[in-house]
Amino acid sequence: MSELEKQYRVKAGARLKLADYDPADKSQTANDKAARNAQVAALAPQLDALQDLLYAEGKRKVLVVLQGMDTSGKDGTIRKVFQNVDPLGVRVQAFKAPTETELAHDYLWRIHQVVPRNGELVIFNRSHYEDVLVTRVKGWIDQAETERRIGHINDFERLLSETGTTIIKFFLHISKDEQRKRLQERIDNADKNWKFNPGDLEDRKLWDAFQAQYESVIAATSSVAAPWYIIPADSKSSRNQLILEILINRLSALGMQYPQVDTRDWPKTVE
Amino acid sequence: MSELEKQYRVKAGARLKLADYDPADKSQTANDKAARNAQVAALAPQLDALQDLLYAEGKRKVLVVLQGMDTSGKDGTIRKVFQNVDPLGVRVQAFKAPTETELAHDYLWRIHQVVPRNGELVIFNRSHYEDVLVTRVKGWIDQAETERRIGHINDFERLLSETGTTIIKFFLHISKDEQRKRLQERIDNADKNWKFNPGDLEDRKLWDAFQAQYESVIAATSSVAAPWYIIPADSKSSRNQLILEILINRLSALGMQYPQVDTRDWPKTVE
Repeated sequence: MSELEKQYRVKAGARLKLADYDPADKSQTANDKAARNAQVAALAPQLDALQDLLYAEGKRKVLVVLQGMDTSGKDGTIRKVFQNVDPLGVRVQAFKAPTETELAHDYLWRIHQVVPRNGELVIFNRSHYEDVLVTRVKGWIDQAETERRIGHINDFERLLSETGTTIIKFFLHISKDEQRKRLQERIDNADKNWKFNPGDLEDRKLWDAFQAQYESVIAATSSVAAPWYIIPADSKSSRNQLILEILINRLSALGMQYPQVDTRDWPKTVE
Repeated sequence: MSELEKQYRVKAGARLKLADYDPADKSQTANDKAARNAQVAALAPQLDALQDLLYAEGKRKVLVVLQGMDTSGKDGTIRKVFQNVDPLGVRVQAFKAPTETELAHDYLWRIHQVVPRNGELVIFNRSHYEDVLVTRVKGWIDQAETERRIGHINDFERLLSETGTTIIKFFLHISKDEQRKRLQERIDNADKNWKFNPGDLEDRKLWDAFQAQYESVIAATSSVAAPWYIIPADSKSSRNQLILEILINRLSALGMQYPQVDTRDWPKTVE
């Protein structure tokens, strides 16, 4: 495992204090923004090449989970980190409020339907983790139910992992002050008005409760098979670079190969 | 409608002769490959901007259908034409041989499930048209059933169109000799072996029957609401440029707008 991965990966079973992670940390990325963006531009084609290999090989699945507070940069990450990948083998899955049919099933039912197939890389833009985050913070479920669900989620991710899915979970970690700036920008800048949801201000009032819940959920669900990475996300370019580096490390480590084909019965010449 | 669109669009109700369309035609694109690729690089961000607007607006749906003989460049088109779009609002839908459950329903059942939602651009890599193409050429359905299905497909596309979907259908038109070269390349070049399917040679023997069936199906299903474009596809760069130009023209014509938001009740300052 690279130093960078070690630094941001949450150890399975370890206690987690989000306060130990600086949202503005740039210790592993270049000092100036232009240099970081140049790194991102250099890394994006590497991720593209690995995704191409994943698709061609067609034998494994990759699931990337993005979680974070409002404005933490989930959409921006999808746009910038995955800017070079081939739409052919990549799917983004967003989860909105569940429908009536979805609510009539267990909460992992709709998630299971959209996990990656062989050769596919799927990005969850929010995920099943909402079912132990917002639900608990708003008091829709109690602590006992939360703990049962954490058990289900660990079991579910073990199933996916043991059936060929590489799971990589990112928490985009921003400071409360950075969120304030980003929300203010959505109010002040007419071009960004459409991104603003007044309900985000209600969630902002619950900032501390959300942070505490993220802390306990991440600690309880970071496993060797499905680790969480805490990504400092106050700087967008640094966030993009770190996520790219981690994805490239993890995918490179899979030892993927272009398919070997038995060509012995093929014709030499096409008529 | 632009001249370029007029030239490649199949008029609703008109008789179609594929032989009238030269697969090597470059009358609307630059003479040399480098210039065409430069055009593609210049156009791709324009498509990206339109797709961003489609997603932000969230009110309409876009369906792009790609059909063509083996090696006609469906995968390559997805990779190059959509190289700049945001994975957030774009989905590629491939259709393999139907599953048992799918076969237990009507043939449009699985198609309907994956049409675009509001704000989404979906690319069908092959489509419901296979159900009147390969099925007919191989004799799995008779002519009467083919005609019934063409009726269903026109009805289905009218439903999608009248409920907010822009449908743009491309036939990637290659010559039989170009297909020979591309198949030969997949045999000769070890890196491309994994793309070769010996079954493609069987379909190649049915080249004329496929062309005739494409001709009659395209003529019968090119409507004002859901037109077909015959794209000369022997040159990959020319193909990419033409598809980009048509997509940009069609999406620009929709008159999409970033959402207007009522900000009167918003706070001025985020706490």
